[in-house]
Amino acid sequence: MVLAKDIFTEFKEHSVSEFFRKNAAMLGYTGKIRSLTTVVHEGVTNAIDAAEEAGILPSISVSIKPVGDDSEHYKVIIEDNASGIPEEYVPRVFGKMLAGTKLHRNVQNRGQQGIGVSGSVMFAQVTSGKPTKITTSTENGKIATYDVMINVNKNRGKIMDRKTQEGDWRGTRVEFDVKDVMYTRSRYGPYNYLRMTAIANPHVRIRFIEPDGCLTIFERATKKIPDRPEPIPPHPAGIRADDLLALAKNTRRKSIGTLLVNELSRFSKRRLKKLRELTDVNLNDDPSELNWKKAEKIVSAFRKMDFMAPPTEGLRPIGEEKIKNGLRQVLDPEFVSAVTRTPEVYWGGIPFIVEAGIAYKGSAGSSSNSENKGMELIRFANRAPLIFDQGACATTLAAKDVNWRRYNVDPEKTPVTLLINVVSVHVPYTSAGKQSIAQEQEIYEEVRQATMEVARGLRSYLRRKVKKREQRERAGIFERYLPIIVEKASKISGKEAPEIGPLLTKITGVNND
Amino acid sequence: MVLAKDIFTEFKEHSVSEFFRKNAAMLGYTGKIRSLTTVVHEGVTNAIDAAEEAGILPSISVSIKPVGDDSEHYKVIIEDNASGIPEEYVPRVFGKMLAGTKLHRNVQNRGQQGIGVSGSVMFAQVTSGKPTKITTSTENGKIATYDVMINVNKNRGKIMDRKTQEGDWRGTRVEFDVKDVMYTRSRYGPYNYLRMTAIANPHVRIRFIEPDGCLTIFERATKKIPDRPEPIPPHPAGIRADDLLALAKNTRRKSIGTLLVNELSRFSKRRLKKLRELTDVNLNDDPSELNWKKAEKIVSAFRKMDFMAPPTEGLRPIGEEKIKNGLRQVLDPEFVSAVTRTPEVYWGGIPFIVEAGIAYKGSAGSSSNSENKGMELIRFANRAPLIFDQGACATTLAAKDVNWRRYNVDPEKTPVTLLINVVSVHVPYTSAGKQSIAQEQEIYEEVRQATMEVARGLRSYLRRKVKKREQRERAGIFERYLPIIVEKASKISGKEAPEIGPLLTKITGVNND
Repeated sequence: MVLAKDIFTEFKEHSVSEFFRKNAAMLGYTGKIRSLTTVVHEGVTNAIDAAEEAGILPSISVSIKPVGDDSEHYKVIIEDNASGIPEEYVPRVFGKMLAGTKLHRNVQNRGQQGIGVSGSVMFAQVTSGKPTKITTSTENGKIATYDVMINVNKNRGKIMDRKTQEGDWRGTRVEFDVKDVMYTRSRYGPYNYLRMTAIANPHVRIRFIEPDGCLTIFERATKKIPDRPEPIPPHPAGIRADDLLALAKNTRRKSIGTLLVNELSRFSKRRLKKLRELTDVNLNDDPSELNWKKAEKIVSAFRKMDFMAPPTEGLRPIGEEKIKNGLRQVLDPEFVSAVTRTPEVYWGGIPFIVEAGIAYKGSAGSSSNSENKGMELIRFANRAPLIFDQGACATTLAAKDVNWRRYNVDPEKTPVTLLINVVSVHVPYTSAGKQSIAQEQEIYEEVRQATMEVARGLRSYLRRKVKKREQRERAGIFERYLPIIVEKASKISGKEAPEIGPLLTKITGVNND
Repeated sequence: MVLAKDIFTEFKEHSVSEFFRKNAAMLGYTGKIRSLTTVVHEGVTNAIDAAEEAGILPSISVSIKPVGDDSEHYKVIIEDNASGIPEEYVPRVFGKMLAGTKLHRNVQNRGQQGIGVSGSVMFAQVTSGKPTKITTSTENGKIATYDVMINVNKNRGKIMDRKTQEGDWRGTRVEFDVKDVMYTRSRYGPYNYLRMTAIANPHVRIRFIEPDGCLTIFERATKKIPDRPEPIPPHPAGIRADDLLALAKNTRRKSIGTLLVNELSRFSKRRLKKLRELTDVNLNDDPSELNWKKAEKIVSAFRKMDFMAPPTEGLRPIGEEKIKNGLRQVLDPEFVSAVTRTPEVYWGGIPFIVEAGIAYKGSAGSSSNSENKGMELIRFANRAPLIFDQGACATTLAAKDVNWRRYNVDPEKTPVTLLINVVSVHVPYTSAGKQSIAQEQEIYEEVRQATMEVARGLRSYLRRKVKKREQRERAGIFERYLPIIVEKASKISGKEAPEIGPLLTKITGVNND
C-alpha cells in the first residue's frame, strides 16, 4: 500500500493556459480541418463583436495564405474596422485566458468567455512556434504592431517585439501562423463558416481570400447597424439564491429592496410591495445583511409572483424578415417561413430568444452531393455559426424530437433546411469550444416550439400544393373529356356547343384562361 | 462611435472557478437528472482512482438521501477505503480548481483535470448554500472532519469548520448537499451509472443506497488489484516540437541525447544513433540549447524512423475475458465477443488502447422498453462510464460509420450491445465534463477497427446459426421421408429395412442420436 503522504508529494497547481494547452480539444482544436476553422471562428467572432461594441458597421477581411511548401502550414489573417485596442491591453487580450470585457457583463456577444482568441494564439505557438502578430490603431495617428506569445505556465501574454509607425487607419489585424492544419471547402471548412456567418449577419461585409488566391466577397444586405449590445440584468424568474448573494456582495445600494428594484429586470416598486407581503425578510436591511436563508426566502417568494417577460432591448435577434431573406438569397427555395419567439428565461434568470427559419426545395436540404437529400439543420448562437458537435446540441435534439411526419416532412427525403438561432446574454455551451448548446429544459422547449411553428407554415404550403395538384389533375380529366362530351351532346341534341372555358373553371376551380 | 478606451474600462480578469460557476454546463451540470449523476460520477471516479493509486482493492459506498420534504434536495455521500488525505491538502483538493496529482503526470486515471470534485463542491454550494463535509483519516488514529466551501473569486478552498476525533479507520468520505436535482432510475441516473461502473471494473465493490432506502451491492468478481498506474513517457511517434521544448525546459539531463533516451518511451541508444544520421542537430548540446528549429528537425527525423509500439505496462485495459464476463453477467446474452487492441499513439505522442465487446440477444440491445430493440452503445474512458453527450463522441461516430449490414446486423432491429472502452494516460475529452471523446483521427480509426473485429465474430456466429438452421431443416425433410422410402423400398425388394439413424447423419450432417 502506498501512503497518502507519498501520493500527495505529486500534488501541483496549474494555470488555466496549461489546462487548455493539454486539453486543446475542449477549445475546438481537434483534427486538421476543424482546428483551422476554429482559428477563423475565434478571429471573426471577436472582429464582429468589436465593431458592434463600438457602434461601427462591421467590415471584416479574412485571408488564409499558404506558407512555404508545407501543405499544412498557413497564415490566417483577420482584420476588422473596429475601434482598435489600447496598447496596455494587447498582451492581456491575446495572451491571457479568462480576461476580457465579456465574461462578467450580461451582454449579448458572440464571445463570452475571454478564452477564445488567446486559445488561437496558443494553438499557433504550439504548432508553429511563432508568435501572433497584432497590428492595431485607435485612430490616433499611430499604428502599432506587436508579436505576442503566451507564457503558458503563468497564463500571461509576452510581447516579443513591438513596432510603431505613423498612419491614419483604425482597426485591428491579427495574423496567426498555424501548422498541422488543412484547408478544405467542405461543410466544416472556413468557406462554409463565413457563408453561414453572412446568412445570419446581413449587416456584415466579409472579404475572403482562399489559399489559392480566390477572392469571395459576402456583400452586406443592409446598412443598419444593430443596436449596441446593452447589459440585461438578471430576471427574477429563474434567479437562484446564490446569484442574489453575488449581487448583494458587489452592490453599492443601501437596502435589499433598492438592490432588487435596480439590479433585477422587471422588478418594479409595485413588485417590491408584493414581495413584502410574501416574505418576512426585512427588505430595508443593508444588502450585506443578506444571507443564504433570506436569499432563499426571497427566491421562493419570486416563484409565487408573476413577472413581465424579460426586456427585449438588450437581445438582438436576426428578425423574421432577415432570416427569410438570408435563406432566400443563399438557397433560392420554393418556400420559406421564419419566426422570432418572445423572450424566455432559463436557470439563473438568464433571458434568451429562439428564432427558427425553414426553407423548402431550391438548394435547401442536406449536402447537395448526397443521393437522398433530406433535412439539413444549420445552427447559430448569437448569430455565430455552430458547425461542430452537432450531435450533442440541444437544438439538434429538440429539432429531432419534433414529429416531422405530422408536418408532411420526411427527414430522410424532404429537401428542407432548418435554421435555428439562440440569442442570449449567456449561451450555456457544453464546452469552451462553443459549438454545442447544453440541454437546458427551457431552451430545448423553445427550440421545439419555434421549429413546430415554422413547420406548420411549411405544412400549409405543402397542403395547398397538393390541393392545387389534385385540382389540376381533376381539371385535366375534365379538359380531356368535356370537349368530347360537349361535342357528342351537341350533335345528338342538334344544338350549338357552348363555350367550354367558363364551364371548366366553374367545375374544377382552376382558371385556364 | 464608442472609443476603444471607453470599451476597455470594462476589461477584467477572472478566476477559473468564476468561469466554471458561470459555465456549469461545461462541467456536466445541466438539468436536474444529469447534475445529480455528475456529482456521483466525480465522487466515484475520485474514490476508485484514490484506492488504485494506493494499491488498495477499492470498496466504494454511495448513498443518496432525501433532505426534508423537498423532492429536489439530497445528500450525496461517497466513501472510499483509500489512503486518506493529509490535512493540508483538503482545501486544495476540494476547493481549488486545476490542482491535483493528475493533470501533469502521464498516468492513466479516471480523473485527469483537477477540476471534477471541486466542481461538485461548487455545485453544492451554489444550489444549497451548504459546504461539503469531508471526513478523512490516513490511519494515524485520528479522524478529521472538515466543512469546505470555495471562494469563487479567488479559486481557493475555505475551511468553514473542523473537528477531530480519535479512531481507527482509513479512507475518505465526502458529503455533498445538493438542491435542484432529481433522482431517477433511468439510463441517465446514478443507478445505471454505478451498474456500468461495475461492468467495467470487476475488481471494485460498490454498495449503493437509493433515496428510498433500497440497498444494492455490486459485488466484485475478482480480487486482483489492477497494477498501480505508472507514468508513461511520451512516445516519439506523434510528439510535437512544442512538447519536446517543454520537456527540455523541465529536465535535469545534461544533453539533448540523454533527454531523449530517458524521457521518451521506446527511445533506445540505438535509436539515438540513427537520429544522429538523420539530423544535423548536435545532440550533445545542453537541453537548454534546444530551440524551435532544432526541435522541429528532431521531430521530422522521428517521422522517418520506426519505433516499437508504446509500452503497455502503464495502460490498464479491462481485458478480453473480463469484458466478456462483464457482458455475460449483466446481459445474459446468446453470444459475446471481445477484443483488446494493441496500443497506438495519437497527436502529442500519447499512447492509448481501444477495447470493444459485443453481446447478442439476452437482454442486449437498446432500452428494453422500446418496441424495436436495436443496437445499444455503452461507452467507457479509462473504465469510467460515459453516459451523456453521446452524439458528439468519437466512439459513437466510429461505431455508426461501420457498415453493419456487412455483419448481418441491422442497427435498428438486431438486439446487440456494443461496448467501447478507450484507455489512455490522457483522454482527449471535448469538454471539462468528460463525457465525450474528441474526434482524434487515430482514436476514431482504432474504435472502428475494434468494432469491426468484434462484429466479425458476431457475423461468424450468426452464419453458423443460419447454417445450422438450414441443416436442421434439411435434416427434417429426410427424417420425414427417408423412413417411408426405406419402408417402400424394403417391401419392394423384400429385404429387411436398414438402420435409418446412421444414414440420416451421413446425409444431413446432423447427428440425431
